[in-house]
Order: sequence, then C-alpha cells, then structure tokens
Amino acid sequence: MMTGIMKHRQDSVMLLSLNALLIVSILSMWWLKQRQFRCTHVSGVAMLYGMVLGAIMKSVDFVYRDEPMEVYACVGLNNTPLTLTVNVTSHVHHYKHVGEVNFLEGQGSSLITDLYKMTFDPEVLFNLFLPPIIFHGAYCLNQRRFIDNLGSVLTFAFMGTIITCVGIGACVYAFTRLMVVAGQSAEGDFLLTDCFLFGAVISATDPVAVLALFSELRVEPDLYTLLFGESVLNDAVAIVLARAITTYSLTGGVHAFDTRAFFLAVGHFVAVFSGSFAVGFFYTAVTALLTKFTRLCEHPLLETTLLFLLSWSAFLCAEVCGLSGIVAVLFCGMAQARYTIHNLSSEAKIRTKQLLEFFSFLGEMFIFCYIGFVLLTFPRHVFSAFFICGAFLSVLVSRACNIYPLAFLLNLGRRNKIPLNGQHFMMFSGLRGAVAFALAVQDTSTEARRTILSTTLLLVCITMLGLGPATSPMLRWLNIRVGVDEDEDKVSVQGRTERGAAGEGRVDTTAGLWHRLEHKYLGPTLTHSGPPLTSTLPLWCGPLARLLTSPHAYENQERLRDDADAGRTEVNLKEALGDQGGSVGGVAEPHEDPLEGDLGLGSTPATAGGEE
Amino acid sequence: MMTGIMKHRQDSVMLLSLNALLIVSILSMWWLKQRQFRCTHVSGVAMLYGMVLGAIMKSVDFVYRDEPMEVYACVGLNNTPLTLTVNVTSHVHHYKHVGEVNFLEGQGSSLITDLYKMTFDPEVLFNLFLPPIIFHGAYCLNQRRFIDNLGSVLTFAFMGTIITCVGIGACVYAFTRLMVVAGQSAEGDFLLTDCFLFGAVISATDPVAVLALFSELRVEPDLYTLLFGESVLNDAVAIVLARAITTYSLTGGVHAFDTRAFFLAVGHFVAVFSGSFAVGFFYTAVTALLTKFTRLCEHPLLETTLLFLLSWSAFLCAEVCGLSGIVAVLFCGMAQARYTIHNLSSEAKIRTKQLLEFFSFLGEMFIFCYIGFVLLTFPRHVFSAFFICGAFLSVLVSRACNIYPLAFLLNLGRRNKIPLNGQHFMMFSGLRGAVAFALAVQDTSTEARRTILSTTLLLVCITMLGLGPATSPMLRWLNIRVGVDEDEDKVSVQGRTERGAAGEGRVDTTAGLWHRLEHKYLGPTLTHSGPPLTSTLPLWCGPLARLLTSPHAYENQERLRDDADAGRTEVNLKEALGDQGGSVGGVAEPHEDPLEGDLGLGSTPATAGGEE
Repeated sequence: MMTGIMKHRQDSVMLLSLNALLIVSILSMWWLKQRQFRCTHVSGVAMLYGMVLGAIMKSVDFVYRDEPMEVYACVGLNNTPLTLTVNVTSHVHHYKHVGEVNFLEGQGSSLITDLYKMTFDPEVLFNLFLPPIIFHGAYCLNQRRFIDNLGSVLTFAFMGTIITCVGIGACVYAFTRLMVVAGQSAEGDFLLTDCFLFGAVISATDPVAVLALFSELRVEPDLYTLLFGESVLNDAVAIVLARAITTYSLTGGVHAFDTRAFFLAVGHFVAVFSGSFAVGFFYTAVTALLTKFTRLCEHPLLETTLLFLLSWSAFLCAEVCGLSGIVAVLFCGMAQARYTIHNLSSEAKIRTKQLLEFFSFLGEMFIFCYIGFVLLTFPRHVFSAFFICGAFLSVLVSRACNIYPLAFLLNLGRRNKIPLNGQHFMMFSGLRGAVAFALAVQDTSTEARRTILSTTLLLVCITMLGLGPATSPMLRWLNIRVGVDEDEDKVSVQGRTERGAAGEGRVDTTAGLWHRLEHKYLGPTLTHSGPPLTSTLPLWCGPLARLLTSPHAYENQERLRDDADAGRTEVNLKEALGDQGGSVGGVAEPHEDPLEGDLGLGSTPATAGGEE
Repeated sequence: MMTGIMKHRQDSVMLLSLNALLIVSILSMWWLKQRQFRCTHVSGVAMLYGMVLGAIMKSVDFVYRDEPMEVYACVGLNNTPLTLTVNVTSHVHHYKHVGEVNFLEGQGSSLITDLYKMTFDPEVLFNLFLPPIIFHGAYCLNQRRFIDNLGSVLTFAFMGTIITCVGIGACVYAFTRLMVVAGQSAEGDFLLTDCFLFGAVISATDPVAVLALFSELRVEPDLYTLLFGESVLNDAVAIVLARAITTYSLTGGVHAFDTRAFFLAVGHFVAVFSGSFAVGFFYTAVTALLTKFTRLCEHPLLETTLLFLLSWSAFLCAEVCGLSGIVAVLFCGMAQARYTIHNLSSEAKIRTKQLLEFFSFLGEMFIFCYIGFVLLTFPRHVFSAFFICGAFLSVLVSRACNIYPLAFLLNLGRRNKIPLNGQHFMMFSGLRGAVAFALAVQDTSTEARRTILSTTLLLVCITMLGLGPATSPMLRWLNIRVGVDEDEDKVSVQGRTERGAAGEGRVDTTAGLWHRLEHKYLGPTLTHSGPPLTSTLPLWCGPLARLLTSPHAYENQERLRDDADAGRTEVNLKEALGDQGGSVGGVAEPHEDPLEGDLGLGSTPATAGGEE
C-alpha cells in the first residue's frame, strides 16, 4: 500500500505544479492582454513557463541524480509482455510496461526520466488534449467562407503538404549526405525514409498557433480562412503521411525505391484518409439523426453531453480501427457544425460552444507548457547544428515551393485572386506547433528519430516565439487589413454566394458541386431544413425518403418558394441570434435554410455571436 | 513499439465501450424522462448498464481464460520498487508497479483482471470524477437555506455520522462474533478495527444519489437542504473517519483498546478536517482576491478556467499534504459560491455553472457505470451471507439511532421543527453511493477488506436500485410536499432571515454567529460587498483594511443606509437574473448586498435561473 500512496502523492504533486503553471500562464496572459502587448500570445507564454518548470525540475534532478538505477534480470523472460508478473519474496506483483530505456551517460535513472515516463505519456497528448482542440477548430470554422474557398483550401492542404513533405525530405536528405561527407555523421544514420518522415512531421502548419494569433488580430477573412483551413486540414494530411511513410519503411525499401511498398503506402494513405472521413461522418450522422428525431432539445445538458461523447467516440473508433482519430474528429467537427447544430436547442448551441472553447483553451495551454517542458527535460536530445540548419533552410524553401506556385495556379481559376501580399503572408505564417511535436515524440527509439524530435522542438519554439511577435509588424509592412469586422465584409461574400447558388460563376467549382449534393440530400436527411427528400431522391428510394424527411421539410418547401429574396436569410440570422437569450429550453425553430446562413459561431472569438 | 500500439488500441477499445455505455445511458435516461418514469433515475440506469458491460466482459473473459499466467522471478529483487527496470535479452525495459496479485483459483491471469487493473485505477475515481461532483454539489447548494439550517446540518453530518459509524461497527462486530460461534468464520478474520472501518465506509449517505433523486422531485426545501447538506458533509466526515481508523489500526490497538492510538486517531481526525478546511478556504481566498482586484471579468473564459483550476488545485494540494482532497474541495465549492461568484461577470457565472454541471453529470454517470461493472467483474468477491445480513441490519438500526434522537434534540432548539414524517423520510433516504464504494475499493489486500468491498457494492446497488424507485410512493405515503417551487417558499425564508439579521430569534445560533463574522469581515475582504473593512476592522489593522477594501465598499455603505427596505434585495435579484442575457462581457454591477441575496444558482436544476 505504501507504494500506492507514494505514487498518488507523486501524481498529485505533478498535477498541482501543472495547475500552478496553467494558472500563472493565464494570469500572465491576462496581464499581457491588459497591457495591450500583442507581441506574445498565450501559447508562447505557456511554452516559456513550461521551460521554466523544466529548468527547475532539471536542477532538482541534478540533486537527486546520484541514486543508481538497478537493472534486474528475470529468469526465463525473453519477450517484453504488456504486464509483467513478478514474484517478490513470495508476494506476486503486477507491473505494467512503460517503454524501453536507452542508456546514455547513465541518465536513465534520473527523476526526470521517471516523471517524464510515468506521468506525461505522449499518448495523453493525443487522446485527451489534441482532439478537443482540432474539434473546436473545425466546429468554429466559418463554414460559408470555408466552402467558398474549399478548392483552394484543399489544394493547399493536400498538394501543399505533399509538396512540403517531399521538398523537406529531399532537402534534408541532401543535407545528411553533406553531413556524411563532412564527417559529421556516419553513413546509415539517416535513411531516406527518416528524412521523409521528418518532412511529414514538420510539414503541417499549426492551427492552434494560427488560431491564437490571427483570430485576435482579425486579419482579412479570406486570408484567414485560407490559412486556418489549410492548417486544420494539413495536420490531418501530415499525420496520415507520417503513418504512410512508416508503413513504407516497415514493408520494404529502406535504401532503394520499392515500388510495391510505395503503392502500399499510397494505398494506406488513401484508405486511412477516406476511412477516417467515413468514421467522422458516421458519428455525425448518428448525432444528427438522434437530435433530429428525438426531443432531446428539451434537455440541453443531455444534448451537449451526447454531442461531446459521440464526437469523442468518432476519435476513439478511428483509433481502434487503425485509422487517424484526428482526421475523424476534424471531419466530425465540421459536419457537426454543418448539420447537427441546426437540430440543437439554442441553449445547447451556446453550451457546446463554451464547453469546447474551455477544453480547447486548456488543451492548448497544456500542450504548449508540455512542449516547453520537454524541450528542457527530454533526457536524450540530439542537437546536430548541421541538421538543424538544413531543416530550417529546407522548411523555408519548401514553404516557398508550396505557396507561390499553388497560389499562381489557383489564381488562374479564382475570381477573387489571392493577392501577392497575401501570398507573402502565407509564406511567413507557417508556424509549427502541437501536431508536429506530437508526431515527433511518438517514436524516439533511434538516434535519427531523436534528432528529429529535438529539431522539431526547436523549430516549434522558434516559430512560436520568433514569428508570433513578428506577426503584427509583418501585417503592417505587407499592408494587410487587420481588425476586419466579419459583418462589414459580409456583403461581398453574400454577393458571391448568390452568384454561386445561381449555378454559374461560383468562385470554386468544387464548392458548387458540393453545394448541390448537400442541399439536395445531406441537409434534408440530417436536419429539418431544405426540400423534402421525397422530392429530391429517386422514386425507388420512396419509403426511405419518407422515413427520413421531417414534417418541417414540406412546410419549408412552400416557404422557400415564397420568399426567395436575398435579404431573408440575413433577417433570419439576426432573429436567430437575437432570440437566444429568450427561447431557452424551447425547441429551436428551424430556419428557412440554415445551411445557407451563418452558423452563429463566427470564426473570430471577438465577434462570436450568441451571448451579445 | 508493438506493445505501445497494442496498449493504445486496448485503451481506445475500453474508452470506446465506456463512451457507448454512457451514450446508451443518456438515451435511456431521456427515454425514461420522456415516458415520465420517475421510478428509475440516471444513476440506477448507468449502474444497470455497467452490470451489462461487466457481464459481457465476464463472458468474453471465460473464452480467453485458458492462457496461463507466467510469474517471473527477478534475480536480487527483494523489495517492490515503483518502477522496475528489467533486462530482456539485452534490451532494458521500464515497468511500472500496478499492484499485488492475490491468487484465488487461478483467476489472476484473466483478461478482466488485466483490464480492471490497467484501465480503471480506482485512483482515477478519486482524482478525476469525484471532485467535480462534490464541488458542483457544494457550489450549487442553496446557501441561504443551508446557513439557516447550519446547526442541524452540522449535527447530522458530524454527530450523526459518528453515531452511525460506531453503531454499525459495534453491530457488525457482534455479528462477526456470532459468525465465529456459528463456525462461519475463523477467529481473527474480522478485527474490531475492520468492523469500525466498515462502519466508516458505509456511514456516509451519498450526495450524488440524493441530488439525483430529490432535486428532480423538488421535495420540500428545508427537508432537501437537511438531506443534501448532511450527505455532502458526511462524505467528508466518513472519509476522514476511515482514515483515522486506519491510522488507529496501524499505530496500535488491534485487539484491545489503545488509549494512545485512540487519541492519535482523534487528533488525526481533527487535524485532517481543519487542515482540509484551511486548504479549501485558502484557494477560495486566492480566487476571490484575484477576481476582485483584477479586471479578469472582461474575459469570462479566463475567469471560468481560473476558478476551475484553482478549485482543482485545492483538491490536489490537500492530497499532497496528506489531507482530504474531497473535504477541501467541498469547502472550496461552498466558499467559491459564497464569495468568488460575486466578483465574476454574469457570463462567467453561467459558464462556470454549466461546466460544472457537465463534469458532474459525466462523472456521476461514469461512477455508477463503474460500480455496476465492478460488482460483476471484481475477481475476488467475498460474499458472506451472514456478514451481509448483519451489515444490512446494522445499517438500518444505526440510521434509526442517528436520525430520531438527533432530530428530537434539534427540535428542542429549532423554531421550525423537523416534522415526524420528515424524520421518517430522512431515515428512509439513507442511500449509499460513490463515496462508500471509493472508500471500500482503496484497499482489498485482506479477506476482511474484500468482504467489506463486496458488501458495500451490494448495499450501494440495493439502496440505489431498491430505494430509488420507492422514493415517489414513499413521499406520497408520508404526505411530504413535492414539486415545491423555490420562489413560492421564499417568503417564509425571507421572514426568517430578517429576524435573523435583527440579531434575535435566529433559527440557529450557529448561523447567527457565522453571519456576523462573515458580514463584517469575510464578505468585505473577498468581494465588493458589505461595509468597508476600514469601519469593521480594529484601528490597528488600518493599512491592511484600506488595501483590501474595494472602492465600491464605501458607496455600498451609503446606499445600504438609504434603502434598507426588505423588497430591495428581491428586486436586485430579479434585475441580476434578467440582465444576464444583455450585459455579457461587461463588468458585473455589484449588488447592494449580494451575500444576503440568492446566488442565482438555486439548488434544483429545474428552477436554476440565469438562462430563462
């Protein structure tokens, strides 16, 4: 029992110091906000405090270091079981596997390693803190703008990330060759797959950092949407890419190119992406149908809890199936905000938003504290100046190869072009953050992997602490509008949307296609809005269509025909925002066409409606 | 790496099935509410589903049972370290201690044991789920009514719990003697301290169950306050008692009475209780002063997060100091609701309440699922029919010895007596729940302790599933008012409070004393309300008083003199509730005397204001 109590105390001390860290971060953040210091934001502050805690722990650790680590050998044990059952002087004890220890100058036994290994499992990062951040980002995306820019966002996210990954991989590989020539590293230390893995790890720009920085400054909405949409989606792409590269390196070609392994990896990429998308969508459909056909909206707490649990289940289910939980939760968040939200009561909408905001805020702070902490306390850092320089250079080069050519190609098709100063700013704002770290920390078994982790940590810290404060001056220098009010800009968007709805001249053809599919089938199935399914689905689907069509839909059809004037949506939006204070507990009146309206979420916390 | 991925999947499967369980519970709960089934409530439903999951796991377990468990012996290992470092074929692996294994008919190796040991650490119950439930209960307590009934509640909580504990201990000890005589148990199986420990474990009535059942039925508020106040506080008493008894059994007297050990245990009880109180109050004071002297109220998210983190820190700090975290978080919750809440912006008030509601709802569901799950899957149950009968009987008897004499004594001093039907109902509603289980599950090393766990689990299940559905008929039979509106009953309370404020005829003298202390010193120090400290504190405290007095206080003093009419508070309350929708983000106007007003929280979810 004594060990149990000791462990409990140790855990509590760790949590308490973490809490203290977060509290101090929050207070500093508030103080900075108060003093109008725009140069640093919460993530940077949290990271700095994490470093301070790391430094303290490190110095405490030196005091305790003397204690030698005893390594035992178990008779007859020649594999590494998940649980080890050991006979200690006729008492049998259970032990749980933590990980392999690599001895480097005898640091294995230090308190830090123990604490690091025992309390802050990187798994926790993935399972507990990242999903709500990604979900919140996806949930609060300004959907209309996102769909207007869908094609461009997808291009940047998919093509851009792949270009970056390959670019970084190639550059870094060249550098490691140079390192071998210069005698800085041995042949075979860095395999080509390691380099590409590094490319995948570092290719994703971070939505957390982007959100924190730009939403406060209220950058021009189209630019913001491009940047945020890209950063949210390319996380997913990077995660799946990293996994595909690991698959590739496990199945075949390490030195030479292996066609079979390559196609396996590509197949894996496609399968994971589409599988995760399907899982995310499945859980959204379950949530939407549950909230559509039950009167759960009378109990906002239940609605919120259900939405929360089902979205988390999407993450877990994807992980169980060997897919990507983050990708699933990302699509789930976007779909929940597009469909389920219309079935929720107005109180549940506010509750859900605030709950997600809380989780994502805490998670974000925790992750950046942790990044700072690990940077100083990770016991097996491998800092190679050559590799770091190479990495920085290749990140810059590949970002340029990503943004400018893609923007040029997209501008050929886009009605409202991405201006050159916007491109410069996109180039500049490639902040790296939590996802890169989480990918890098997953495997630290080889020297190369540890180099990747150390370099990634440095890159994250430098982009966060260096680029963060430089954002404001940069925006001024590039002459980019800041402090843009979402409403002020609404007119132009609406004009565009109308043109889009008319079927021709839509900003993006991808968006137009999606819009038709959604308006006719998905919307009516999952919400009370849109034309009845009985009129859009083919005749042989009759019974199913009748089952899924809500009684509201027929009324909607009539009303839609009557008031097709453009101003109507706007008025409904105002009404919807206005009555949130009053109609609590009641059933949310379905809007005439909520899928077309703003979701009342906004993308910038400052203008986020609902409580005003 | 393979083990890591396996572990991750296993964890995910476990979490996913838990999520599914919770989702199904929520849906069933909603369905039951819809159908107006008052007989079962969420806790019971969750417990039933937990049992179903347990049964499924158990049957899966039988399939996997064949796999033999291998016990290894490590060379030179003769203690049980927290982390075990093992050399496996020249790779060194870290293992973390989980617990001791007791072999009983070879069940040690089953999947259940592994899952049980690995994923559902009872620690998690204590550290993650219980604190928000207790905090929420304390935070949402109807403070005015609680303080009006303070003396009675304290008597029931302290005296009552001690009477119950001793009563159960003595009865059960008598039964175990009988068991020895009847040949059902060996001499020395049950020590006197085991019996008293069982008394402490089972003495606490459960606030979770009480809250779930009675708040929905809206029982007469005074009775509700007595029951809920008792159940919230006696958890704390039971936890500290259980620990004091453990201390006693460790330090001395096992068979005979040991005076020194007894006084040590009593000292421990007093020290833990007052220490935890101090920790809880300290963190509240920090929160209150932070929110009073900064303009954090411009950022509701930060306010809520701070309140949340600081309250959790109170729990952790108490645990680190070897005190009782639950007691600390209980007092912290009550104090936060009494002081800090007045410094919060109105949006932060709603946010905090909703966040706590969410956590406590999820935690409650989880705990009851878990209780059901453990009842069916705990591999080392010891069900002794004799002991169980004895336990049931002694619980009944000691509940009677607690309620009737204490109510009689209290009625001598109370202005509004506790009626006889109220006493019967208090006798009836001694539901046992999460805290009893959490106390019992902490130590299962001996046969006696396992008997205690099994009996406690049975008692919890039977009181929850048996007494829960019987509540409504019981209330009808005892002629107790239900569906009482808090407002409707307000007039009588107000009358009483005024009399109390006038200094004479206060319902409870404890309350009067407390009220004066609070009104003059605590309130003005921690909030903007009340008379300025410069006028209440002695002269030599001048500088401190000036530092802590907010500028509002001087204005308050003037205004308080002007409108001392009774209706005023009520009007302010209405205003405060009314403008919550409008003045979001702004600074909350300090009420004239918020400490005297209702907190806008209410004790019954159904009437909880703020969002209406």
